[in-house]
Amino acid sequence: MKIQDLVAQIKKKQSFLCVGLDTDLDKIPQHLLKEEDPIFEFNKAIIDATQEFCVAYKPNIAFYEVYGLSGWKSLEKTITYLNANYPEQFTIADAKRGDIGNTSTRYAKAFFEELNFDSITIAPYMGKDSVEPFLAFKEKHTILLALTSNTGAFDFQTKIVEEQELYKRVLKTSKAYENAGNLMYVVGATKAEYLKGIREIVPESFLLVPGIGAQGGNLQEVCKYGMTKDIGLLINSSRGIIYASTDTKFAFSAREKAKQLQQQMHLELKQLD
Amino acid sequence: MKIQDLVAQIKKKQSFLCVGLDTDLDKIPQHLLKEEDPIFEFNKAIIDATQEFCVAYKPNIAFYEVYGLSGWKSLEKTITYLNANYPEQFTIADAKRGDIGNTSTRYAKAFFEELNFDSITIAPYMGKDSVEPFLAFKEKHTILLALTSNTGAFDFQTKIVEEQELYKRVLKTSKAYENAGNLMYVVGATKAEYLKGIREIVPESFLLVPGIGAQGGNLQEVCKYGMTKDIGLLINSSRGIIYASTDTKFAFSAREKAKQLQQQMHLELKQLD
Repeated sequence: MKIQDLVAQIKKKQSFLCVGLDTDLDKIPQHLLKEEDPIFEFNKAIIDATQEFCVAYKPNIAFYEVYGLSGWKSLEKTITYLNANYPEQFTIADAKRGDIGNTSTRYAKAFFEELNFDSITIAPYMGKDSVEPFLAFKEKHTILLALTSNTGAFDFQTKIVEEQELYKRVLKTSKAYENAGNLMYVVGATKAEYLKGIREIVPESFLLVPGIGAQGGNLQEVCKYGMTKDIGLLINSSRGIIYASTDTKFAFSAREKAKQLQQQMHLELKQLD
Repeated sequence: MKIQDLVAQIKKKQSFLCVGLDTDLDKIPQHLLKEEDPIFEFNKAIIDATQEFCVAYKPNIAFYEVYGLSGWKSLEKTITYLNANYPEQFTIADAKRGDIGNTSTRYAKAFFEELNFDSITIAPYMGKDSVEPFLAFKEKHTILLALTSNTGAFDFQTKIVEEQELYKRVLKTSKAYENAGNLMYVVGATKAEYLKGIREIVPESFLLVPGIGAQGGNLQEVCKYGMTKDIGLLINSSRGIIYASTDTKFAFSAREKAKQLQQQMHLELKQLD
């Protein structure tokens, strides 16, 4: 998907919401467990109920890998369902991969070709030749971890490297990678005040922002410091939406939660006009 | 597997060789392509032929993920075959995963429980709460990326953070993580001269050393600076062994290459006595 198509969707739906499909057999409504593929049935219901209010879906791959072959099958069915029924949705494989060149190419093929995701999250630690194999794919997007929403972010990401925090060094260095136009970045909502400095380095890049809701991030703060004229934000909510209730009305509850967030986003977008 | 069992194997076999199972359908002998699962058949033949001369196997997960469901099936069969037939072999899922707490737990379960690997490689960028969920597994080992063998390692890993290179900061910081005794580290053989400084920080930890052979690293150099009284090294070779020849004698050729490396390792181990 092209960035301008994503921006057009955001403007049309008045939403920059991404729904995180962190689907966990211990948390989904128990009546689904009798289905042949409970994970896919849950995802399908959540997608159908929320798609009107969001522009992106982000399965976290760990939640599928943990179930081995059967989890991989549920993931395949989920992305196939999304691409067939809602091709306008931007899809994110939250995989946090990254390896040396020829190996990264294989991860890229797995998620961009085999599964046909629009984008993937990538860890920057191994540098240029671990990231560029992903960037080589046209109309696909590589979402580099910059500043994550967890407490461990302070172990290395915020340490000073050559007069600048490591996450800023990651932003700057990656801008020189080949096809850097295909880059987006992960910036946790729990660290909204950092967005001002981040926008000085990447004034226009899309940021994927986890941590709203369950992790305590604040939507208004994120928009105040992070929004660009082309929005430039995808705000992710996972647990807050998909586990809004766990009874037979779970999809309706998820829809209501997504709608609430969309309405808040609509107010933020109005300020752009 | 306990570290002392790995050390005992190394002493018994006079080898600290790890064979990397980077199995690629474009590179394996073409006569295998008519088999139902060519990747597993190739791995099985390579394992049977080389197991006498090595103490560990390391499938790189990207090479399996790229084939989707069928690749995941081949991986499952490979690790099941290893655990059933050669339980004395130390198994490494070269996955380079890492995510926030509850998600890392899922990756840990996927590789430590579902697939029953002895260890997994992990990227350190997200810090403490992304690594500790792996360390929580008893008798399993977490191999943290410290200094990798690729050129991109110079983008961030060797940059100075608080008067010390980032990879040294990773070594130091990780020593304070809970259950840090389960940590090992990846250090590329192409940077053998760095091993002296690394041993000052982690004098006893096992190091997984890729980059011998195809990438140009030197075994003697690595041993000179990296070996401990309990060896403390696993030297990986992938392409140099598994693609030693690509005709019908591929397994025999792989065996000969593994044997050559084992003999060189035997000479290095003699110097420990």
